[in-house]
Amino acid sequence: MRETTAALIVVGNEILSGKVVDTNSAFLARELRREGVTLRRVLVIPDDLEEIAAAVREMHPRYDVLFTSGGVGPTHDDITIAGIALGLGRRVVRDPLMEEKLRALFGARINEARLKMAEVPEGGEMVFEGGTNFPTLKVENIYVLPGIPELFESKVNAIKGRFASDPFHLRVLYTSEMETSIAEFLDRTLETFPDLLLGSYPKYGDADYRVRITLESKDRDYVERALEHLLALLPPGWVLRTE
Amino acid sequence: MRETTAALIVVGNEILSGKVVDTNSAFLARELRREGVTLRRVLVIPDDLEEIAAAVREMHPRYDVLFTSGGVGPTHDDITIAGIALGLGRRVVRDPLMEEKLRALFGARINEARLKMAEVPEGGEMVFEGGTNFPTLKVENIYVLPGIPELFESKVNAIKGRFASDPFHLRVLYTSEMETSIAEFLDRTLETFPDLLLGSYPKYGDADYRVRITLESKDRDYVERALEHLLALLPPGWVLRTE
Repeated sequence: MRETTAALIVVGNEILSGKVVDTNSAFLARELRREGVTLRRVLVIPDDLEEIAAAVREMHPRYDVLFTSGGVGPTHDDITIAGIALGLGRRVVRDPLMEEKLRALFGARINEARLKMAEVPEGGEMVFEGGTNFPTLKVENIYVLPGIPELFESKVNAIKGRFASDPFHLRVLYTSEMETSIAEFLDRTLETFPDLLLGSYPKYGDADYRVRITLESKDRDYVERALEHLLALLPPGWVLRTE
Repeated sequence: MRETTAALIVVGNEILSGKVVDTNSAFLARELRREGVTLRRVLVIPDDLEEIAAAVREMHPRYDVLFTSGGVGPTHDDITIAGIALGLGRRVVRDPLMEEKLRALFGARINEARLKMAEVPEGGEMVFEGGTNFPTLKVENIYVLPGIPELFESKVNAIKGRFASDPFHLRVLYTSEMETSIAEFLDRTLETFPDLLLGSYPKYGDADYRVRITLESKDRDYVERALEHLLALLPPGWVLRTE
């Protein structure tokens, strides 16, 4: 089955310096997963032109879709557009439609900082999906999203339907035993089902289980057979429940 | 002033697939900042041997300290140690001290999965700071930390004193005006204080301010002079308060 891969570049001194907690990565990961898209990489880098350009150069050919978060406002540290343009070898130009919208919005109060928000890498297009006030900038396979969580989330919700792919099927097994006890049974399951996405997550604290085991695939039948296989291997009483 | 740089590799299918929200990055960012250390990069990658090795090869020469989070348990998807070893061109060996500790802990219940937790890249050393039950593995400039937040945090707290550097001095200014209005004054402040770490963070929702401006440097006097400069530039009434 076709797999769509995605990656995210988060531009944010505020995150690296511990002033702001990044919630955009987790939101994007969850929403893409629901669309059947595999997020393969998240990279958080400073507001630095060369670092943004280098990340874009490395990552945009490697994944089907690349997202950026942050650095798209009107101030000195908003250099994501310039960084993407540098990474792609394109000039920064003013998008006529965005300029018109900004001039209509600000009227006589228009200034250079406000007009900066009309800047795009040459050849960028505006995606008008989902009825958001302002469109989302797309250039090649890169979607440029704002860092403010409310805006980031509304834009992801507006465009995520574009990436819809075959869904993942997930089954979960909760066990009372330690990871070190179940490891051999997981290994044996993977020998028979090598393409299974198998996760093992120990829980500390007051959970009613010790380890949560996740079985996933885009092939529903494959997941069900793998779960049956694992259940048959595990000693009686070790499985608390499945979902 | 000397600047210590750090980076973090998070190994985690569970994070990329949206099953688990990564809190370790934000914790590390904040704690390092308090020690005067600049976190320059966070990279989240899958449980994939080659990806871990490639990330280690690229990042460990580039930063003073490199941390990894996750992938250090006893199961099939715990391949961080092997990935680091591959990235550094070292063999994976069993650490005699760790093996002894594990044998003492598990007694007759010792098995291959449990002994896997004694594996280290050859030449790795055990850091016994902070009175934690188990030491932290260090190899070259890489500290190998567990992904489970409770364990990650206790290990960071145990070792963070090692990296203590000159502290950052932070002043914060809250304004009632939009980013597009204040941008020119921020630019003019940076012209006079080019080494200032200047951040501008608009707030949506029901905050009592529109933008939070952060001024930082390791030089306290420099920050204070920059803040005075900015305050003198801003029109009367725009500043709600400073911290």
